[in-house]
This record gives sequence, C-alpha cells and structure tokens, in this order.
Amino acid sequence: MSQNDPSGRPHYTSVIGSLPQSVPFVAPEALERSLAGVLCLRLGANESAFGISPMAVAAMRDAAAQTNWYGDPESHDLRLALSKSLGIGLDNIVVGNGIDGLLGYVVRSIVESGVAVVTSSGTYPTFNYHVVASGGIVHPVPYRDDRPDLDALLEAVIRTGARLVYLANPDNPSGSCHQASDVARLVSDLPSDCTLVLDEAYFEFATSDAVLPMDISRGNVIRVRTFSKAHGMAGARVGYAIAHADFISTLGKFRNQFEVARVSQAGALASLADAEFVDGVIRAVEAGRRDYEQLSQEIGCPFIPSATNFVCFDVGGVDRARATVAALLERGVFIRMPGAPPLNRCIRVTVGTPKERSEFAGILKEVIARL
Amino acid sequence: MSQNDPSGRPHYTSVIGSLPQSVPFVAPEALERSLAGVLCLRLGANESAFGISPMAVAAMRDAAAQTNWYGDPESHDLRLALSKSLGIGLDNIVVGNGIDGLLGYVVRSIVESGVAVVTSSGTYPTFNYHVVASGGIVHPVPYRDDRPDLDALLEAVIRTGARLVYLANPDNPSGSCHQASDVARLVSDLPSDCTLVLDEAYFEFATSDAVLPMDISRGNVIRVRTFSKAHGMAGARVGYAIAHADFISTLGKFRNQFEVARVSQAGALASLADAEFVDGVIRAVEAGRRDYEQLSQEIGCPFIPSATNFVCFDVGGVDRARATVAALLERGVFIRMPGAPPLNRCIRVTVGTPKERSEFAGILKEVIARL
Repeated sequence: MSQNDPSGRPHYTSVIGSLPQSVPFVAPEALERSLAGVLCLRLGANESAFGISPMAVAAMRDAAAQTNWYGDPESHDLRLALSKSLGIGLDNIVVGNGIDGLLGYVVRSIVESGVAVVTSSGTYPTFNYHVVASGGIVHPVPYRDDRPDLDALLEAVIRTGARLVYLANPDNPSGSCHQASDVARLVSDLPSDCTLVLDEAYFEFATSDAVLPMDISRGNVIRVRTFSKAHGMAGARVGYAIAHADFISTLGKFRNQFEVARVSQAGALASLADAEFVDGVIRAVEAGRRDYEQLSQEIGCPFIPSATNFVCFDVGGVDRARATVAALLERGVFIRMPGAPPLNRCIRVTVGTPKERSEFAGILKEVIARL
Repeated sequence: MSQNDPSGRPHYTSVIGSLPQSVPFVAPEALERSLAGVLCLRLGANESAFGISPMAVAAMRDAAAQTNWYGDPESHDLRLALSKSLGIGLDNIVVGNGIDGLLGYVVRSIVESGVAVVTSSGTYPTFNYHVVASGGIVHPVPYRDDRPDLDALLEAVIRTGARLVYLANPDNPSGSCHQASDVARLVSDLPSDCTLVLDEAYFEFATSDAVLPMDISRGNVIRVRTFSKAHGMAGARVGYAIAHADFISTLGKFRNQFEVARVSQAGALASLADAEFVDGVIRAVEAGRRDYEQLSQEIGCPFIPSATNFVCFDVGGVDRARATVAALLERGVFIRMPGAPPLNRCIRVTVGTPKERSEFAGILKEVIARL
C-alpha cells in the first residue's frame, strides 16, 4: 500500500471483507508491462486471430461519433435480431457485458452466503470468482476423460443440495464437448430447484450435435453466449443470456441497465448479419486445429480433440507445462495452461492465423526440445 | 409472460426474489418505440449535445478493427494518465463501466440485508436501485433549498447507523451544488465506519470552489467520476473511482475485470488528452445555461441555478410538470422531471446546441402557454 493507515474505513460486508486478493486472469498487457516488452504472439486468451467482420468495423466506425448518446439499455435491435435467428421471444434474451458480466448476474440472483454451487474443477475460473464474491461454496468436480463429468456433476448437485451448477459446452480450457443428448439428460435429471448455467461461449465452433436445441420452457436453465469468440469481438463486451422469460425478467430487476457500449451494440448487430464472415472464421479455425494436431504429432505431445478455437497440447506434466509457458513467454509468446489436474499437464494455445501458427510451431519445437 | 409456467425454477436469494420490477430510467429509444416515431430533441438524459472530442472519435475508429482483443482489464494507460493529471497514485484509481457500474461495486462492498444507507430523496435513482438489490434499507433525506441537506444527511447517518451515504455534488436532478468546504465538513464529521460515496459526474461544469480537493488519506470516502458528461462519452461506458488504495484494492477483488470496451478505453484516453475540447464544451454549456435562464424569464418559470449541463425549470407543481413532459413528448421532445418533492414541481432539461435550444424554446413556450 502506498499510503499510511487511512482515517475512517468502510464497513465491508463479511463476504467482501474476507475475499482473497485474486483475479481470474492475468492479461497480456500486464505481462507486457512486467516484461517491459511487446508480445510477438498473443495466443493465450482465445481471442480470435481472424479479426472482426468488416461490416462490424464499419458499423463501429460509423457509430463512434455518436458516443455522446447512451446505448439503448434494452439492446432492443440486437435482441430482436437474435430472437429471430434463434426462434425465441424477445423476453427470452438479455444482452449484457460479456459472458463474465452475465455470469455475475446469474450468480447474484441465486447465490448468497453458504449456498452450494457445483462446477468442474479447473473449468472457467470467472464463474467461481463470482460465486466466492457472493459468499457461495464451490464444490468442484474432477474432469473425467478430460471433459466435465456429467454424471458426477449431477451426483454432486444432489449430494450438496446445490442451487446452481455450471457447465461449459464446449468446455474451456479443455476444448472438449459433450453431445447435446447427454447435456439434455443432465437438464432433465436436475432437481427442479437447481439451475444449470450453460456456458456456450464456443458453441459456433462445435458440430451441431453438440449444441442443445433451443428450449426455453425449462425455468432452471440459462444459456450464456458471446460475440467474443466466433464473432471475434472480445473487446466489445457483448454477451447474451437465453432463458425462460421469468428468469430474464428477474435479472432485469438488478442488472446494470446501461452497461453495453453503444459502438459495441452497433458492431454486434452488424456482425450478426454477416454470417459469411463468421462461417469463414469457423472454417479457418478448423484448419488451424488440424495444423495444431499435426504439430502435436511433430513434437510428440498428444492433443485433446477440440470443439473450440484453441487446442490443449499434453506436454507430459504440470512442471513441464509450467516450464513451457515460461519459456514461451521469454520468447514473447503468450499462452496459458489449465489451472487444475488433470488438465494442468497441458498447455492451451489459441488458434492463430497461418503465419502465427507457423511462427508458434517453430518456437514451440525449440522450447519442447530443451525441456 | 409469453410462456406457460416453467418446469423447474431458480431458487433465488430472498433479496433478489423479492425485488420489484423497476428500472431507474426509461430510455429515449424505448420512448421512440412506444411512440413509433423518432424524437426530434433528445434533452432528457444529460447526454452532451456537443459531441465527443475529434481525437476520441479518431482513436475509437482506429481501435475498432482491433476489437478482437480484450481491453486491458487494469485500464493501465488510462489510469496512468488520470493519476498524473490528478496527482494521486495508480492504486487510488479503478476504471469501471460508468458511474452506474462503480456505484454497484461500492454498494456491494458495504451493503447487505438490513444495512442502513442514507441518500437524498429524489437524487440519482440508480444508487437506490443498487442498494435495494443488495438488501439495504434506504433512508431518504429531503432536500433543503433545492439541494441535498448536508446537516440532515449527517443526522440521518448517525440516527440510522448507516454504513453508506450518497451525495452527488453537483447534484442531479437539481443541478445545484455545495461549496467544497461544506462537503469537507461533512466528510470530517462522518462516523469513521460510514462511507461517503461522492458522485462527481458533473464536476467539470462546477466552479473550482465546489470541487473537494484531492485527498486519498480518508479511507471512508470514494469519489466517482465519468467520461459521460463533459467528455461527452455516455455511450462508451467509462467511469472511474478515486479512493484510498485499500478501498480500491477491495473493489478489485470482485469487480468484473474485463468490463470496459477496448474502443472505449482508447476513446477516453484520447479525450483526456484533449483538454481544449473539454474546455470548449464547458464554455458552450455555460452559454446554454444562460440561454435557459433567459428562457425561464420569458416563460415566467423560475430556474434552479445549475452547476451541470442541465437546468431545472420550476413550472409550478407536479401536475404541471407531468403535463409539460407529456406535451413535449407528443411534440417529439424528450426531457425528464425529478421524481420526488420538492423538485417534482420542475422539468429538467439538458443544455442542447444553440439550434436545439432555440427549437426547444419555441416548443416549450407553446406548451407552457397551453397548460
């Protein structure tokens, strides 16, 4: 702390007052500041290497000068376009500040001190970050076969009396996914007072049999999606949640109404209309995954089959994974590694452009050879 | 609701489950949808009529294509620029999703079920919206002389054992302000475990003797500011909070780390460097306030002296204020009126451009004549 003890002190809630000092992710910009240099390859945050739709860029540029106006707090035009494309009602959709922001609202609506919550050990950490900040108790369930273990998640829900369970499908950081029919069985077996938050950040990259059909009749399921991945708009902070109208209406009672930037709304709407661009990204990512699978053979490290825009390479153990991340960072390459067993034997690498993949392959081979 | 009763239902927390269906503000876009027409004058949300800095527009346009990257969650460059201009440390500043988002964090850090909170009756409603969503009990204190009553706020804090008190200086919706020395006395008299959140959304429009000097030694004071008003960037969703490093650090333990859009960060940084533009806005707003004061004489309605970018016209009672707002809306003019006595005898009008002011004056005169 740069100051002496203050005069006066906030009377924090017991939950907030006892929170640990932690952030879910160290950003590449923070790495650059600590390195005092610029990263040459930014492949650690699953940002799209394929940019954003030219139509979205144009829409954002056009909207920039009108930044003096608040965005529409209802994101009506974007919700209307989403509702048409998804075949659901306007009142089944809320647009928010990325999946991170929406996860925060879902957690706050259900979790208070002592409430049990179930998730997979090592999956997306921002969910846990929100749960802890609401005083909830996280019950982590180990992966099985490098995927969330649906049977064990259900068992843990029942055992702990959890009111909320998190599943990312496709999953991050493994990249793996479950068939929609298996997720549907979890939904159907879930106690009626336990809510599933289904994180579909990467659904566009999965085959259709891994995407749960639209069904907003279940009151205890909420799906969260984003423009950050296939649409490539991570910096715009636009996500949306899909649920029964009662649930969406409840979130509307306390959400920060004006949280989506006006230029971001314009960009997301334009991107949604540019299916050709997004299809191109999906195909480019598929090609990139094949390159990474080839690379995994060349370095003798297995990969985990991915339904996302990133691939996990099994480098053979947590120490080797840590050393690989560190050695790559010394070379200016930003990647991440999963935080918990069994996946922390892996490094996780975002699919880059062909040029980035080629550069990465060269550097990774050298790093692995020296481990 | 568009669906039948759902199968399964979230087990909401008792606080969230009992929230009323309310939003702090109906947006002009929602008015346009209900009117099925376009508003000709948008003077109700205190958005800047004077646009945003050309340097900010250029920075946002340049940044648009890089929207595939997340923004820096620490907003380091923007905080660095702010810390230099304010003469405080980097660790005394957090950048967030507008003042609304930051107020939410301040409230969540301090308010839980049953916690007493003090504010002025009829001041900025989004603060109360957050307090209610955290289960707090709002103790509203009436205005005195059309301003927050500092003595009564302090008295209410002591009487209720409040842990949080809200003051906007300059105030919204009155536009009035207190001298910094009076605010300093409130700070100094405040119980050490009660936190003052000082909303300075409009401080750039006030004279310097109304702006509390920078002092981050007080642990129980947090100031919130924004790029929405003098910088004209309401649609960007960039605000910042200034406090003792301990407080800023605590907010960092649960805030949504990636909530500020990348283009918005670029725009705010550029706007901060364009002091000439902001000074021009401030002078243009002063000229506009003088026009509104002249208009108030012409229509025979007193005005409340304003230190902001809006002016309250006293139209002589709540029914007349409601009728004026409705009649203006029928003419495509969006303004608002304060929600509580004694200010609900007024209409609140944002300073427009000279052309907008002239159009508004013409329409208002007709509307007032027909009341």
